[in-house]
Amino acid sequence: MLDMFNAKSVAVIGASETKGKIGYDLMTSLLNNYKGKIIPINPKGGKVLGIPAFSSIKEYGHVDLAVIVIPASLVPLTVEECGETGIKNIVVISAGFKEVDKEGFKLEKKLVEICKNYDIELVGPNCLGIMDTYNDMNASFASDIAHKGKIAFMSQSGAIMAAILDYADKKNIGFSRIISLGNKAGINENDCIEDFMEDENTEVITGYLEGIVDGQGFIEASRKASQKKPILLIKSGTTAKGSEAVSSHTGTIAGSDSAYDAAFSQSGIIRVTSLDEMMDYSSAFALSPLPMGNRIAIITNAGGPAIMTTDAAIKAGLELSKLTCDTQEKLKAGLPSTANVKNPVDVLGDASPDRFRFALEIVLKDPNVDGVIYLVTPQSVTDPEGTANVAIELAKKSEKPVLCSFFGGTRFEGAERLLAGKRVPNYLYPKRAVKSMKRLYDYSIIKNQEYPKHPKFDVDKDAVRNIINDAKKKGVNTFGLESFDILKAYGIPTVGTALTTTVEETVKAAEEIGYPLVMKIVSPQISHKSDVGGIKLYLNNAEEIRTAYEDMMENIPKKEPEAQLEGVQLQQMLSGDKEVIIGMIQDPTFGPMLMFGLGGIYVEIVKDVKFAIVPVSEIEANNMITGIKTHKLLEGTRGDKASDIDSISDIILRISQLVTDFPEINEFEINPLMVFEEGKGALAVDMRLILKED
Amino acid sequence: MLDMFNAKSVAVIGASETKGKIGYDLMTSLLNNYKGKIIPINPKGGKVLGIPAFSSIKEYGHVDLAVIVIPASLVPLTVEECGETGIKNIVVISAGFKEVDKEGFKLEKKLVEICKNYDIELVGPNCLGIMDTYNDMNASFASDIAHKGKIAFMSQSGAIMAAILDYADKKNIGFSRIISLGNKAGINENDCIEDFMEDENTEVITGYLEGIVDGQGFIEASRKASQKKPILLIKSGTTAKGSEAVSSHTGTIAGSDSAYDAAFSQSGIIRVTSLDEMMDYSSAFALSPLPMGNRIAIITNAGGPAIMTTDAAIKAGLELSKLTCDTQEKLKAGLPSTANVKNPVDVLGDASPDRFRFALEIVLKDPNVDGVIYLVTPQSVTDPEGTANVAIELAKKSEKPVLCSFFGGTRFEGAERLLAGKRVPNYLYPKRAVKSMKRLYDYSIIKNQEYPKHPKFDVDKDAVRNIINDAKKKGVNTFGLESFDILKAYGIPTVGTALTTTVEETVKAAEEIGYPLVMKIVSPQISHKSDVGGIKLYLNNAEEIRTAYEDMMENIPKKEPEAQLEGVQLQQMLSGDKEVIIGMIQDPTFGPMLMFGLGGIYVEIVKDVKFAIVPVSEIEANNMITGIKTHKLLEGTRGDKASDIDSISDIILRISQLVTDFPEINEFEINPLMVFEEGKGALAVDMRLILKED
Repeated sequence: MLDMFNAKSVAVIGASETKGKIGYDLMTSLLNNYKGKIIPINPKGGKVLGIPAFSSIKEYGHVDLAVIVIPASLVPLTVEECGETGIKNIVVISAGFKEVDKEGFKLEKKLVEICKNYDIELVGPNCLGIMDTYNDMNASFASDIAHKGKIAFMSQSGAIMAAILDYADKKNIGFSRIISLGNKAGINENDCIEDFMEDENTEVITGYLEGIVDGQGFIEASRKASQKKPILLIKSGTTAKGSEAVSSHTGTIAGSDSAYDAAFSQSGIIRVTSLDEMMDYSSAFALSPLPMGNRIAIITNAGGPAIMTTDAAIKAGLELSKLTCDTQEKLKAGLPSTANVKNPVDVLGDASPDRFRFALEIVLKDPNVDGVIYLVTPQSVTDPEGTANVAIELAKKSEKPVLCSFFGGTRFEGAERLLAGKRVPNYLYPKRAVKSMKRLYDYSIIKNQEYPKHPKFDVDKDAVRNIINDAKKKGVNTFGLESFDILKAYGIPTVGTALTTTVEETVKAAEEIGYPLVMKIVSPQISHKSDVGGIKLYLNNAEEIRTAYEDMMENIPKKEPEAQLEGVQLQQMLSGDKEVIIGMIQDPTFGPMLMFGLGGIYVEIVKDVKFAIVPVSEIEANNMITGIKTHKLLEGTRGDKASDIDSISDIILRISQLVTDFPEINEFEINPLMVFEEGKGALAVDMRLILKED
Repeated sequence: MLDMFNAKSVAVIGASETKGKIGYDLMTSLLNNYKGKIIPINPKGGKVLGIPAFSSIKEYGHVDLAVIVIPASLVPLTVEECGETGIKNIVVISAGFKEVDKEGFKLEKKLVEICKNYDIELVGPNCLGIMDTYNDMNASFASDIAHKGKIAFMSQSGAIMAAILDYADKKNIGFSRIISLGNKAGINENDCIEDFMEDENTEVITGYLEGIVDGQGFIEASRKASQKKPILLIKSGTTAKGSEAVSSHTGTIAGSDSAYDAAFSQSGIIRVTSLDEMMDYSSAFALSPLPMGNRIAIITNAGGPAIMTTDAAIKAGLELSKLTCDTQEKLKAGLPSTANVKNPVDVLGDASPDRFRFALEIVLKDPNVDGVIYLVTPQSVTDPEGTANVAIELAKKSEKPVLCSFFGGTRFEGAERLLAGKRVPNYLYPKRAVKSMKRLYDYSIIKNQEYPKHPKFDVDKDAVRNIINDAKKKGVNTFGLESFDILKAYGIPTVGTALTTTVEETVKAAEEIGYPLVMKIVSPQISHKSDVGGIKLYLNNAEEIRTAYEDMMENIPKKEPEAQLEGVQLQQMLSGDKEVIIGMIQDPTFGPMLMFGLGGIYVEIVKDVKFAIVPVSEIEANNMITGIKTHKLLEGTRGDKASDIDSISDIILRISQLVTDFPEINEFEINPLMVFEEGKGALAVDMRLILKED
């Protein structure tokens, strides 16, 4: 919990009487509503806006919160003073820190150190301030305090905070707490999520973020919070390309945004991509109960809009309730004969408020209805306010969500004001009511989602440690199938393979692996092995192995006299089964991220892959597998048998453990992993592992 | 052109003095604005709202337009009278026709006949009426006439028309003509599109449709109109499943909406899925010039919103302009040092209107900028009205589109009113400005799109006619590869195949087709041929053919003594090339529709297919091929050579001709079509053709 929101005394360091100065705005912001003590600090002393000012914070002494609006260069000294005075909560409004130049970067570093020394919670620098409407505290230079409400909002952009406040004021959307994060030198999104989760006035957690400071901490905080309250977040900058050079398929396919998508979905966060969505959904969450399912009813006075709303509902993933016979009979008894008593329920263009009430009351009682869209158009006899009042009255006492769409303009201004005033969710366009309903439903599932611990396999970590250390000593940092021992140490089955240097050794290895086999020449100088006869397929017995080996050793030197022949690689020939790819790259925010997809063109062209942040649980591993569009291919369509999905899942989990145990692994890929039919396992056929550059 | 919109005299048949009656509403609607002659018709005579009424239309005589609001049962007689009086334009408001019951259906049929006899243009029945703002005529029972503007709107839903009018009133969106289509017994969407295209006051054609009366006529009218004016249409009911039973892949995959999507895109129509999109886009079209390209600049006083807007722009398919050095230098010279002079141009939170003007003027002159998003947030010093006035002044004289997003609430109410009053497009959320800009750009391409005639191949139509007739006689209506002659007659290459009944015949056929071959037993009783040894692969010479044939004839009867062996089917063995599928189904609205996709799982699981309404032109055939996501596979990735796309295109065009020539074909599919590398053609391997049931 962040104490600062409950501050009973606030010092404004840099308070000013001069209009247009932020120190003035801050004072008036506080004076307008705040019931605690306000202490202006100004070196000149005297009074600020009628309140006696102190020349320094030391002169006054302890306060619950200090808000600082003085030139950046003076901030560290002042914070030091605050620390000495025992102040534990500071908001630095001032700009001029790491967002401007190197000098500012150093200043900010200093600021952070001082705060650490004194155990100070720091907001900013370079921010708009904070608000707590239940403490009547507007410690920001946004002009007016927000309406009281249930939405908490954090923003990494001051402009977006200003715009949202202005929009919410017009629409009577209420907030509990608002915080402008600024440079996030101290308090970051994770602290806010924890605070909002615990704040009893908050029921919806929202935020605008441009980046995340601590990815794994963020996942942890969000998982906990999303089981108590819905989290709606915007993460902008989604189209920027990751800058790091990558060499694996995984790296090529993963956009900079894949990790955010994966992390948000693994943490129960509802990701929104625009502010209209955020305001729409958060209003629904703040004002409505959650539906028990995804079956909605539409009640309307208009056929055309009902069709569009039905389209939108189906597209969004909702279902249209099948109204019970009982409901239909009751509706029939009281509605005109031409009314539609099936869903969408059309009470006809000449419907009075009473007719709307009659229908809504009956439909809300139907056990097949999880929520209602109340869709009103301005027809000639429509009574907008009366019809709105019906929704207000019944929505307020209903245990099912009723989302309104008063779909009109001038004639609905009064009704809109009524609904906004009474805080019943209302959307101009029915599609937006539908999408909001869908999010309510989504959250009803997220809320009960469990996050089991990832499994811990019994593996031979030391073996891998030794392989990596040996390689490092040799200056090697890329590993291929010659390092299958890494996989074996982690219990990942690999295709039978051997690297041999004499004909006898080769025959012996072949007998051990079993036939049929493929033999490949091993030579650093030969990249196109088949061009020089360096690949032999379908070797079925010792004799064929012997002939193939001797043929290579005799004939390849004739074609490539310069090439050093180091030996041959034997490998089991497998065919006719599904190939999948499991990869890992390092995300700068969230750390290791796994990728799963079907092999070959599915990954390269269809880009049908799924990502997950490590460590993954069994459920998450399964979600990766079932999350790809081509998943049906693994389920066994077209007469094929189902593939061994359990083995894939097991291998994903083992890789998760491997890359967690060895953070020095920068990229990793099993490609392909050959998957056999159910119960018959899977084998890694090739791998690629790249260590981070030292 | 529909004369009714220019009517200089309007008779209201069913005019009433009783408030609450539609005949009263209609009279007041007309009286409020109309400058032509208004003639109330009421059997009681006397006066209606102060105007002398006539007891029947015959008593008065000819008018330019008669609007009828009397009980449905009386309508035909009245229309007959209108016809006798020489009236050519009638709007039937009255409901109670085919929308209610069989009786109504008959009444409507009668109505249509009478209109035909007298050459009357009929709107409705069961509609709200029509409007022409430039004729100051509101011949509808919607309360107020719309503002004058450039948008024409047709609606198949009265409620949506009412809602749009109310919304537009609030937002000061102007219309030229509005028509409520009702049951579309006479005038339908095609007539409206033609009329709107020719109407000089209309610059944007919009509409809400639930169905289309004449699909091919619609495509023709829309193609012509979309080259002159943008067409934005909603087609609702998109999620309803087609009811017709289908047996081909094509039929299984095609949703009822695929045909609308294909037809709209082939006709240059911008399909929109919600009314907010329609209003957003049509405002942009009505008020802005078209951009010359897709490179936009953003000018803003806020960093965070600029990032979100950039994300939205890239996602929408726009590009961010690279501002010239010259532009950047100029901006640098006049903006504060911390301003961003690269795109997005950030004039900073404390920007005055003058600073916005400075930046906007320079950026609009940059040759790399095709359009500007003017993005304003309400920061503490922002002057909303002043900043809006800058946009109004510069947008009005710019040849490039300037779309505003004043992103706030209460503080921006004045600015919003200013922009709406001066009709400069403004969107609350920047994303919507971006999407509107994208549509402007899309239309700049559509406008110049050409619709070449589909080619006409020299084919043997009679041969196909004979095959079909012969089959019909035998009661056969499904054709497989035994009917490859159908393809051959249309110049579509087929894999070598033969149906033979003796060993000698088989050997002869094999020599003609060429090796390797596959042989399959032909027997109506054997469905799993391979289980009885009824398939032999890789037959390489006459000897092998002979042995295979004799083996089948000798051994199959031992396993399946009941089976009648009719002979064997020989077929060329092909492998290693791309398989595609080309199919056709009949759409109830648009007629034959083709489908193209890659074979196998791409179609069945990935559902990566493209549809087009027949007849298709060469461009459209190519669009089908390049329109699938897996198109890259045909271009030759992963070391593969490119496939012979020209051959696929050619075959699509030939199928288009075939299914046009034979409308009795209900379903058709070549699956697979084997496609070889560039220049080497393609071969149909199997086909399925099903005739309509008689």
